[in-house]
Amino acid sequence: MKPTGPIPPEFAGEGPLLIGGETAEALAARAGDTPLFVYDLGVVRARVARLRAALPAGVGVHYAVKANPFAPLVAALAGLTDGLDVASEGEMRLALAAGGAAGGTAVSFAGPGKRDREIAAAIDAGVTINLESEGEAERTLAIAGRAGRTPKLAVRVNPDFDLRGSGMRMGGGAKPFGVDAARVPALVRRLIAAGAEWRGFHVFAGSQALDAGAIAEAQAATVALAGELAEAAGAPPPLVNLGGGFGVPYFAGDVALDVEAVGGALAQTLAARPAVLADSAFAVELGRWLVAEAGVYLTRIVDRKTSHGETFLVTDGGLHHQLAASGNFGTVVRRNYPIALASGAGGPVETVSVVGCLCTPLDRLGDAVALPRAAVGDLIAVFLAGAYGASASPAAFLGHPAAAEMLVG
Amino acid sequence: MKPTGPIPPEFAGEGPLLIGGETAEALAARAGDTPLFVYDLGVVRARVARLRAALPAGVGVHYAVKANPFAPLVAALAGLTDGLDVASEGEMRLALAAGGAAGGTAVSFAGPGKRDREIAAAIDAGVTINLESEGEAERTLAIAGRAGRTPKLAVRVNPDFDLRGSGMRMGGGAKPFGVDAARVPALVRRLIAAGAEWRGFHVFAGSQALDAGAIAEAQAATVALAGELAEAAGAPPPLVNLGGGFGVPYFAGDVALDVEAVGGALAQTLAARPAVLADSAFAVELGRWLVAEAGVYLTRIVDRKTSHGETFLVTDGGLHHQLAASGNFGTVVRRNYPIALASGAGGPVETVSVVGCLCTPLDRLGDAVALPRAAVGDLIAVFLAGAYGASASPAAFLGHPAAAEMLVG
Repeated sequence: MKPTGPIPPEFAGEGPLLIGGETAEALAARAGDTPLFVYDLGVVRARVARLRAALPAGVGVHYAVKANPFAPLVAALAGLTDGLDVASEGEMRLALAAGGAAGGTAVSFAGPGKRDREIAAAIDAGVTINLESEGEAERTLAIAGRAGRTPKLAVRVNPDFDLRGSGMRMGGGAKPFGVDAARVPALVRRLIAAGAEWRGFHVFAGSQALDAGAIAEAQAATVALAGELAEAAGAPPPLVNLGGGFGVPYFAGDVALDVEAVGGALAQTLAARPAVLADSAFAVELGRWLVAEAGVYLTRIVDRKTSHGETFLVTDGGLHHQLAASGNFGTVVRRNYPIALASGAGGPVETVSVVGCLCTPLDRLGDAVALPRAAVGDLIAVFLAGAYGASASPAAFLGHPAAAEMLVG
Repeated sequence: MKPTGPIPPEFAGEGPLLIGGETAEALAARAGDTPLFVYDLGVVRARVARLRAALPAGVGVHYAVKANPFAPLVAALAGLTDGLDVASEGEMRLALAAGGAAGGTAVSFAGPGKRDREIAAAIDAGVTINLESEGEAERTLAIAGRAGRTPKLAVRVNPDFDLRGSGMRMGGGAKPFGVDAARVPALVRRLIAAGAEWRGFHVFAGSQALDAGAIAEAQAATVALAGELAEAAGAPPPLVNLGGGFGVPYFAGDVALDVEAVGGALAQTLAARPAVLADSAFAVELGRWLVAEAGVYLTRIVDRKTSHGETFLVTDGGLHHQLAASGNFGTVVRRNYPIALASGAGGPVETVSVVGCLCTPLDRLGDAVALPRAAVGDLIAVFLAGAYGASASPAAFLGHPAAAEMLVG
């Protein structure tokens, strides 16, 4: 038997799994088919409320749409947050349709490979562009000039530090993201001289960190860096986007992030911030932390078989819907996401491997996990499916239907 | 500088890259946008011809549609091969539309999690079902009985050996695929007693092997196993599908498979095969080997930037189209696929990293590779894009458009 990650508190406990007050079977019936992703808006609301309470007053909360671009969820988050951060024209259209920008929720666009047509669309929509290089800055100024528009421009900074314990390092050393800190002041001066509306700094030092101390340290370093860059540029930034990096517990032994500790430390950091940032606004940009735990992937058992003494539950789902849970996206060692028999009943606990329907050995959702004895037709729940699930998986692989997605609660 | 894999011989050499006789720029213009996948049918035809010449007379060649389900390519392969092997109802519909089954090309359906509706559709279409378990066999017999049809059934065998040096082990020990060899004879007797049309055995011991000796050994073991199982079942198999496992050279140091050696060894194996297999037909089932080298992924440079002394070429493509080339699908250690500046010109050779447009550090198509100096607007070619590329990548991730696909040659 191999361990699994912790089931999010909202879904833990005895009895049949309820999501937004409905049983898994009722949800599958409503979807009309399995597999399906169910996102519980109540869980998202609770995360936003907890974060707002933990953060110092006035620090904005932005949602990074890339974590989950399911349109009804993005629309809900547009109303719950202060900004939507997007990474493509497609995500920008989604954010605008969800009420971003025009509706008062700020929209900003980051990404190292923006095309001219994406830049033109962002300028046209009044979206803030987080510039990733001097070359992109010049292209953007030229496009705005031709359109006779004043672009809203922030500078994404490649900091000289990274977020300790980060799942993915996004700062420190040579990176494709942002402009090396040393070159940022000159770029800010260039933007202002060219007549652009300068919106401030965007600094993203890492992702998926569970250590509040590491995040607090990165945020303090970010505020200090923003102060230095603003002094050097001779221009206070209207907004400092502190990035994200807030992790969620996927695996056995992971302990949930202490966001209250992060918020407390940030309050101290901001109270002591450099004078040049006195009138700046601040925001955090979170994707995974807001939505990952709200999502459950439900898949039905199609076959139950034994091979050389091991039991396999073969489901109608798999890595074509939930690549990350199979251990094949962004992780080196495969570990089990939390998983459960969604019916809640079942027989005595046994050790089984839960596999998907794909004809590849990569397609494993649970490796030697302990589950109550399940039968063909039962539903399996794989948790932590709210971020980087449906949209971050190879949906066309092997030609099975896409999973349904539902927002409840 | 880090090494890259070998460029397929058809695309190696000096001067601008030509695919099917056209330049990369001409192909991009025809597609109307970048990125795009271009599949050269001439290369596929050459592979099929080489394989036919290498294999003993009468050994069939099947195409595993999962490797590349682009419809025009599947249609072409339906005419070039003796069978199309599918892994979902979606792939089955594609194979049938391409002229499979009715057109004389056999279609067979493998996969560990077939749903009842998929089984019913396969029976209805006269497709051979490769049974993956006793439970699936009983479901299939029941569905056929209710439909009043005689199902065509083969048994997928989980062999006690695997393919040495295999990229993915698909046999040996406990596996979700097929029926453990020891239980196969009883299942065959059950199928025949139930009135099904028994079609034989399907044995798949591994994938992506470059060692001809290892493949020959697995094929010999497969023929021996098929003989033992047929004797024990008291029924000669109409067809023995020997599986695939033929690899292609992706990385530096990889040496192309000696298919002539495989064919020669298979001739000896079949000449000395057990008497019970005297009248059996044999086939190999290949996906990757037939199509991987025929495909080229073309992506345009959007930005050229430096960070801490390193140069990045930022392209409009990325892992949302070519996940495997980014090192994030089925490989533990990231290594470089073969890559080139498609224009063929460019300045002096320099060391650069080629990244995609996605806002994630995973999105790297070439890590510290040597390329002639390239400029914004130039096209980059990533080779070995014909298998497990467009369909095996998270196309929706970050909301960028899908890549175009074209068949040429």
